[in-house]
Amino acid sequence: MRVAILGGTGGLGRGLVLRLGRDTAHDIVLGSRDGDRAERAADAFAEGIADTAGPDHPDDGSITGATNAESVGNADVVVVAVPPEPAPDLVWDLAPLLPADAVVVSTVVGIEMGDDGHAYRRPEAGSYAAAIAAAAPDHPVVGAFQAVPAGPLAALDEIPNYDVPVVGDSPDAVDRVSGLIDDCDGLTGVPAGSLECATTVEHLAPLLMSVGERTDRSGVGIRFV
Amino acid sequence: MRVAILGGTGGLGRGLVLRLGRDTAHDIVLGSRDGDRAERAADAFAEGIADTAGPDHPDDGSITGATNAESVGNADVVVVAVPPEPAPDLVWDLAPLLPADAVVVSTVVGIEMGDDGHAYRRPEAGSYAAAIAAAAPDHPVVGAFQAVPAGPLAALDEIPNYDVPVVGDSPDAVDRVSGLIDDCDGLTGVPAGSLECATTVEHLAPLLMSVGERTDRSGVGIRFV
Repeated sequence: MRVAILGGTGGLGRGLVLRLGRDTAHDIVLGSRDGDRAERAADAFAEGIADTAGPDHPDDGSITGATNAESVGNADVVVVAVPPEPAPDLVWDLAPLLPADAVVVSTVVGIEMGDDGHAYRRPEAGSYAAAIAAAAPDHPVVGAFQAVPAGPLAALDEIPNYDVPVVGDSPDAVDRVSGLIDDCDGLTGVPAGSLECATTVEHLAPLLMSVGERTDRSGVGIRFV
Repeated sequence: MRVAILGGTGGLGRGLVLRLGRDTAHDIVLGSRDGDRAERAADAFAEGIADTAGPDHPDDGSITGATNAESVGNADVVVVAVPPEPAPDLVWDLAPLLPADAVVVSTVVGIEMGDDGHAYRRPEAGSYAAAIAAAAPDHPVVGAFQAVPAGPLAALDEIPNYDVPVVGDSPDAVDRVSGLIDDCDGLTGVPAGSLECATTVEHLAPLLMSVGERTDRSGVGIRFV
């Protein structure tokens, strides 16, 4: 599969490029506003991956860089890993360029930072995934990775241990994205309902940040038990 | 300590009475609308506990039954385990009867059941814990147990393995409730922010139900990892 990561030089995007690039045989295209920057980042990430890949990791697949617009042209999965403000407009602009059967993945969350814990910044659409879906009405949209901390994802020398809730209205799209997640060492895709349930999943992001601060831990994620 | 469980004959309330009754040395008062029913239930629960208590379980403490109003009279902790609709009015009615330093614990959640997963039914106050806090303005209110499935809690022959996020504005109240939780076999209290963060915690309830249905599991809870 060809997987485009929009915002692939950002915190979460970087982790996704690194994990998917090392642990799967897919072709990963790191998208960024600046194509040159994307290419340089892709080269650097590919080099870093080579150092940590063990015998169990596939040696096919690739990591390349491109502008956001170029990255989606023949993508099977487009992961939106940009900040919440520009995300819907970016997807709206790119939607006409997407292959008909491409799945769009929203990783987007908005957090209201507080002194005593963090709250969810509720978007008008009810969830960020719903806002993305409204911007790409002809494509199946799935929510995922909202509850995965970026730091441990990019730390390839450690194996994480996170469940990754996946929500969406298209069972095929949820399966495709869950499969991608399962291919990554230490990540498990867990179906968590329709796209309407994105709100419950997105609330995990501020919750996990609050728990981390209150318990003096970094990189807090979840497992369903 | 004396712990009153309002709605102690309901699903979650029953589990809390059983766990706290067996695993801690506290005096548990099962509150119900009907005092006679509460007394009968308390006797039955105490008997059930005796059968499963091992050498590590304290044999002091007690389980008694009373009307909701009688149960709170000298309580150190009042756990609100009634359905969302009557909860704020019940707390409003009982608040004048509470000892000055009693901590009120909201376990309340509202769920919008759907065919393809479940959503959070957002109350006007922003969270159910905030609605309870408005009904007991002179007492510290803590949110907890929203993400603990009732079935496994009441199944005393199995040891659960759940983290229990605890939110509240009073550090002392959060500590008191976290301590209660830690006293129960297999439960761990985890501070998760101020009372404003109750919204993020309450969203776990519909999320865990959706995950359970999509993955054909019952009694799904969480661990922070």
